[in-house]
Amino acid sequence: MGATRAISPLAPDGFPELGAVPGVATRTLAAGLRYHGRPDLFLATVDAGTTVAGVFTNSACPSAPVDWCRQILGSPDGAQGARAVLCNAGNANAFTGAAGAASVKAQVETVGAWLGVAPTQVYVCSTGVIGECLDDTAMVAALDSLVTAEPGDWATAADAIRTTDTFAKGAGASGVTSAGASIVGIAKGSGMIAPNMATMLGFVFTDAAVTGGALQTALVAATAVGFNRTTVDSDTSTSDTVLLFATGKTVGEAGPIDGPDHPDWVGFCSGLDAVCIDLAHQIVRDGEGATKFIEVKVTGASTDESAEVVARAIADSPLVKTAMAAQDANWGRIVMAVGKAGEPADRDRLAIWIGDELVASNGVVDPGYSEDRANEHLAQPDIVLRADLGMGVGQASVWTCDLTHGYIEINAGYRS
Amino acid sequence: MGATRAISPLAPDGFPELGAVPGVATRTLAAGLRYHGRPDLFLATVDAGTTVAGVFTNSACPSAPVDWCRQILGSPDGAQGARAVLCNAGNANAFTGAAGAASVKAQVETVGAWLGVAPTQVYVCSTGVIGECLDDTAMVAALDSLVTAEPGDWATAADAIRTTDTFAKGAGASGVTSAGASIVGIAKGSGMIAPNMATMLGFVFTDAAVTGGALQTALVAATAVGFNRTTVDSDTSTSDTVLLFATGKTVGEAGPIDGPDHPDWVGFCSGLDAVCIDLAHQIVRDGEGATKFIEVKVTGASTDESAEVVARAIADSPLVKTAMAAQDANWGRIVMAVGKAGEPADRDRLAIWIGDELVASNGVVDPGYSEDRANEHLAQPDIVLRADLGMGVGQASVWTCDLTHGYIEINAGYRS
Repeated sequence: MGATRAISPLAPDGFPELGAVPGVATRTLAAGLRYHGRPDLFLATVDAGTTVAGVFTNSACPSAPVDWCRQILGSPDGAQGARAVLCNAGNANAFTGAAGAASVKAQVETVGAWLGVAPTQVYVCSTGVIGECLDDTAMVAALDSLVTAEPGDWATAADAIRTTDTFAKGAGASGVTSAGASIVGIAKGSGMIAPNMATMLGFVFTDAAVTGGALQTALVAATAVGFNRTTVDSDTSTSDTVLLFATGKTVGEAGPIDGPDHPDWVGFCSGLDAVCIDLAHQIVRDGEGATKFIEVKVTGASTDESAEVVARAIADSPLVKTAMAAQDANWGRIVMAVGKAGEPADRDRLAIWIGDELVASNGVVDPGYSEDRANEHLAQPDIVLRADLGMGVGQASVWTCDLTHGYIEINAGYRS
Repeated sequence: MGATRAISPLAPDGFPELGAVPGVATRTLAAGLRYHGRPDLFLATVDAGTTVAGVFTNSACPSAPVDWCRQILGSPDGAQGARAVLCNAGNANAFTGAAGAASVKAQVETVGAWLGVAPTQVYVCSTGVIGECLDDTAMVAALDSLVTAEPGDWATAADAIRTTDTFAKGAGASGVTSAGASIVGIAKGSGMIAPNMATMLGFVFTDAAVTGGALQTALVAATAVGFNRTTVDSDTSTSDTVLLFATGKTVGEAGPIDGPDHPDWVGFCSGLDAVCIDLAHQIVRDGEGATKFIEVKVTGASTDESAEVVARAIADSPLVKTAMAAQDANWGRIVMAVGKAGEPADRDRLAIWIGDELVASNGVVDPGYSEDRANEHLAQPDIVLRADLGMGVGQASVWTCDLTHGYIEINAGYRS
């Protein structure tokens, strides 16, 4: 299911060139569990000695796979000895009670048996419909074919985890350590959640050697500046998961990266940040119905945290997002969103820019403001909105897309 | 400006029968300041001895009229001696700096001089475009005509405060005190805010005698169960204002209502709650693009406050609102919204109803659930969604409307 959508007008020109990551093999299968004529099952296996880090949805109603990943990540086996991650597209295995947990168990036992490893070394992610049970028999049969398939490339892997994404999403960074390790990530997502539709998943792999604790620290930091700074519709998935695997195949002279004092820490974290931000932006560019990619930049806030809250209030405002869809320099809506954010702000110190055009300062429209110049900027596919609160030096950026008829079409149209 | 919209399919059959409130006179004028061919200026005058209460937007960027009303409500003159409220439709006088404050001053001085009262006894409300200065000369000239116009009825008054509202909104309650006082209110609003468009205003009048302090207490309580329990698009106006005037023309034997121990307290508050809830529901029924009026009822929360947060998360979710537009029993989206609310919840105790149909209980779809019966309910214009969290006895209801192409059309279409 899932209506076929035209490729997003904001899509990149093509899938990036991404090399193999030593110690990682990916396999895909067109299992026909929900989609037909394209791969919908993905398996990555990683060599013994791989460390793993994970971040998960804050939802109080997480899916069964999220429960499982959280559980094994916290266990000695899971955290230190990841060997595989399995992902199916089309069914989220969320709100499925005991049957959902049993299905996860069947999956990890099947994959674990094939690999000859403990089930607790196998991670599982599912996205798609909420509230429908997975067909275990069909799934296990499909797994038998998946595990014996020929290993494939990153583009095919990124394709297999899509639900209603209109393009496959990948990003990479090379030479992130002195020994020359690289990072490759794939992701999916185009609405924060929707049954039959997209939720956010990210799988990131590196051949760098990183201890479990340091890997988790790096991933949490990269998520904070990447995935967590994006919003399509303010709705939070039951299934959001990002997993990061470090195979340790490429170790430098200083040994495994074990924290901020390690000489490769900054390089590794910068590379990881770049990959996560790239993937996060691709998800926004595939936002349901999106025709504009919007950076909302807030400066002059009392703290960075305050700036992020205000930026998110602007980025989530339906009225700001519809104005952007209309290429309409309706800056009063930005004032409204700053006002409703509940953070320290003073109307009479507020300044607003659309692109480079200063629209308002000190609480009134700027005498030099040209709506024509603002509209020229808004005619571009990539838009920057900036608000300076004049309260301090805190700043943050959040990325979002516009709100269009396409969003309504996709989310109100497909089942009725 | 403001595109002409068809009357909302959720509109009531007509404007209610509302009698005169002793001590109150209303006047309107088609001033042509922004709209043409219909009244756009409203003046209510109240007799000496009228008490007043007010609640205002929480926005950190309030309009100049909100600044003024807050200021005089807190002053001895204003709180005890209200004599008039003036309202123009089409320009919000927000984000207008010193010019905005000067414009308010010109308005209250003109009305005050005509009435022979202090400017601090005159309240002002404006809604419409943000960031454009009011034309003071035209406004003062219009006021000269307005103050000498013949007093009119409530339907005309409710019509004059509309911006893009598709119908005039009024409600009343009679016999709210032992002496037979009544309450009449009018309101406007159909999106929480939009330049050129609607923000929320409410004007409520009673001939009951109520002290200023008791009046404020009653209004805050009525707002909490009425206006503050509604949401169209989660965007908060710079101009939201509700003012309540008590002329004291109808005093009972127990004297003015001065608090909860007064024999008329419960009757008066119940009547006021009913009027505020009625007006609030009418605003939702006129929600931009609305085709469904939705009550979101949350029960079994740990506290009432927690229930309200969860109900609001469901009511504000774009994915829930688009599903309702599609008459689609997409209950997984309700699970998602409960999960993202950040309140105490347990997936495996959650139950969900669509109308009277039990959809899910104990974290899984209910064996007796019939999607046909759920869809039957969703085909009605009035919808009830209920979630029981199974955590305690807290409950709350929030009212909202669906999210349709009409909302996008109205908010993305009119300036481009």
